[in-house]
Amino acid sequence: MENVLTVPAELLHRQLTTVFTTWGMSQDHADIAATIMVETDLTGIDSHGIGMLPHYQKLLRENRLDPRATPTIARDNGPAVLVDGNKAIGHVPAHFANAIAIEKARQHGIGIAAVTNSNHYGAAGWYARMAAEAGMIGISLTNASHLLVPIHGTQPALGTNPIAFSAPTRDETRPVLLDMATTTVAYGKVSIARRAGKPLPPGWALDENGNPETNSARAAETRRLAPLGGTREQGAHKGYGLALMVEILCATLTGAGSAQLRTGHFFLVLNPTAFRDREDFQADLDDLIARLRGNTPAEPGQPVIIPGDPEHDTFIQRQRDGIPMMPTLVEEVRAVCEESGAGFILT
Amino acid sequence: MENVLTVPAELLHRQLTTVFTTWGMSQDHADIAATIMVETDLTGIDSHGIGMLPHYQKLLRENRLDPRATPTIARDNGPAVLVDGNKAIGHVPAHFANAIAIEKARQHGIGIAAVTNSNHYGAAGWYARMAAEAGMIGISLTNASHLLVPIHGTQPALGTNPIAFSAPTRDETRPVLLDMATTTVAYGKVSIARRAGKPLPPGWALDENGNPETNSARAAETRRLAPLGGTREQGAHKGYGLALMVEILCATLTGAGSAQLRTGHFFLVLNPTAFRDREDFQADLDDLIARLRGNTPAEPGQPVIIPGDPEHDTFIQRQRDGIPMMPTLVEEVRAVCEESGAGFILT
Repeated sequence: MENVLTVPAELLHRQLTTVFTTWGMSQDHADIAATIMVETDLTGIDSHGIGMLPHYQKLLRENRLDPRATPTIARDNGPAVLVDGNKAIGHVPAHFANAIAIEKARQHGIGIAAVTNSNHYGAAGWYARMAAEAGMIGISLTNASHLLVPIHGTQPALGTNPIAFSAPTRDETRPVLLDMATTTVAYGKVSIARRAGKPLPPGWALDENGNPETNSARAAETRRLAPLGGTREQGAHKGYGLALMVEILCATLTGAGSAQLRTGHFFLVLNPTAFRDREDFQADLDDLIARLRGNTPAEPGQPVIIPGDPEHDTFIQRQRDGIPMMPTLVEEVRAVCEESGAGFILT
Repeated sequence: MENVLTVPAELLHRQLTTVFTTWGMSQDHADIAATIMVETDLTGIDSHGIGMLPHYQKLLRENRLDPRATPTIARDNGPAVLVDGNKAIGHVPAHFANAIAIEKARQHGIGIAAVTNSNHYGAAGWYARMAAEAGMIGISLTNASHLLVPIHGTQPALGTNPIAFSAPTRDETRPVLLDMATTTVAYGKVSIARRAGKPLPPGWALDENGNPETNSARAAETRRLAPLGGTREQGAHKGYGLALMVEILCATLTGAGSAQLRTGHFFLVLNPTAFRDREDFQADLDDLIARLRGNTPAEPGQPVIIPGDPEHDTFIQRQRDGIPMMPTLVEEVRAVCEESGAGFILT
C-alpha cells in the first residue's frame, strides 16, 4: 500500500507514553496503557490499538477520563474483588484488576475482579492472554457503547460486548486465544467496507426499521449492528443473549451502569491446578489442539486453525517489520499531539 | 395436532422415577433426574427432557451409565471444587456440583464446581436457573457428542457445547435465562426439518466437503452442524471459538476427556452481594430489562424479548395443560419400560 507508514513498536510506545504523560498520567500508567495498545497493534487488531487514541482524547476533553486517577479496591471478598476505576483510561484499572484476579487464582484456585467506573480498555483479548501467560485460564469481558440492536428491535441498546478467553498451552507463545465481539462483526469491519465502497452482506448491520442494511456508507453512518448470527433464523437471539450476559456482568454487577460511555469490565481467572495436575491439563489441551488441526480441511492447504493463530502470526511479522499506519491515522495522531502539546515523533 | 398425548407433569415424573428406580437408581437420584427432565419439558425444550430417555437407556445398556453411582468430591480447594460423577446419569452429579457451587458462592462470593466422568445432563439452562433461584448469577456449560465442524474443516470435532446463563430479577419466577448451543441450531432443529420434509437454510449444517448442506434428510443422517454464525463471513469462527472454550472448561480442565461420550460440566456461581448491594443490583437489572423491552419493535406487536421469556410462557401453559408427547416418543418410552421391566403408566 502506498503512503503507509511502518512504525517500529518501540517508537509507537514512545509516542504513546509521550502523549499520556503530557495529559498528566504517571509514567507507570502511561507505560501500561501504551504497552497494551502497542501489543494490540502488533497482533493486527488495528481498531483497538493506537487507532483509539483520538477517542481517548475526546474522553479527556469531555472530562470523562481522568488521567491522574488511580484505581482502588472498592470491595475485597477473598476471591471476589470489585475495583473502582475512578475514571482512569480503561487499560489502567483493567490491568490492575486482572493482576488481582490472577493473584487471587493463585491463592484460591479462582479469582474474579469486576471493574466499575472505567473507560474503554482496548482489546479484551489482551487481558485474557495476560492470565494465560501467568499459567492461568483467563476470561475478559467489557461492555461498550451501544451499537447492537436486539432481536425484534430497531434501536442500538447494547455494545458489541466482547468475550475473550485464553488458555495456556505448552508453547507459552501460543495460548488458545479467542477474542470476539458478540455482534456478527465489530464496527471496524463496516468502516473498512465503507472506505472500500463495498456493500455489506446481510447479517452485519440493520437499517432503522430493523431490516438488513447492505449499504456500507449508510450502515457506517447509522451504526446499527446485528447480533452474532445476523438473523433470527441464523441464531441472532444467541448473539443478543451473549451481549446481554456481558452487559449484566460488566455494567449491572459492577454498578458501572448500562448507558453510553458507562464502562465496566469483568475478569475471571482459573488456576488449572485447582482442578488437575498442570501436566495432565496441558497434555490434554495439546491433544485437543492437535486433533482440531488434524481435521481434514475443506480446501487443501487451508487447515483448521485455533483461535489466536492469526494474531500470533501477525505479531511475529509486525515485530520484525513494524506496525503499518494509514496516513489518516498518522494525521490523527499528529492532531492529538498538537492539541495535547506533546511532541509528534512518528515521522 | 392429532394423536398427541398430553401428559400432566406429575404423571411424567412418576413414569420417569419408575424407570430410574427399576434401573437401580436410588429414590433420591431418580427424583432429581426426573424433576430436571420434567421441568425441561415444561419449559418447551422437548429435545432435552423425556425425549432423552431412550439415549440414557442406550448408555445404560453399554455400561457407560452406572445407575447406582454416587458423585464424590475429587478436589476441594475452597471456592473451586472438582466433582467425580462416577458415570452416574449426568443430572445427578450436575445437581450435586451446582449445589456445591451455590454454597461456595454464599461463603466466598464465587464458586466453581467442575465435573468429570459424567454423562448427558439434560438442558444446561436448568442448572443456571437453579443458581438464579438461590439469588445467584449462574453459568452452566457442558461438552457433548461431536457434531460441530470447525471452520475450514469437514469432520465433526466438538459438541454443540451449550452456554447457559441466568441472573435473578426481582420477579423470582422470571430470571434472565439464556440457554444456547454454540452451533447455529441444535441437532433437534435439523430433525424437525427432516420430519417436515423442509430444506435447511444454509448456515445450519454442512456436507462432507464442508459446504452448506440444505437437504434436511441428508443433514440429519450425516450430522455435521455449522458453528453459530454459519459461515466465515457471518462469524462462524466465533461459534467455533465459543464451543472450544466450553470444551476446554468441561473436558480438558476436568479431565473428562474430549471424545465421543466423554462428558464433563462446568458450573460458575456468583453472589451479586460480593460486588454490590442486592437491591442496587436488582434495581439496575430491572432497569436494563425494561429498557430492552422498551426498544421500538421492528414489527408492531412483536416486542423485544428477554432470554427466558419463551420458556417462561411455555412453562405456565404446560403446567396448566400438560406436556404434549408425539406418538413416536410415547412408543419409545413404552419400549424403554419393556426393556427395563418398569411399568408403563403414561396411557
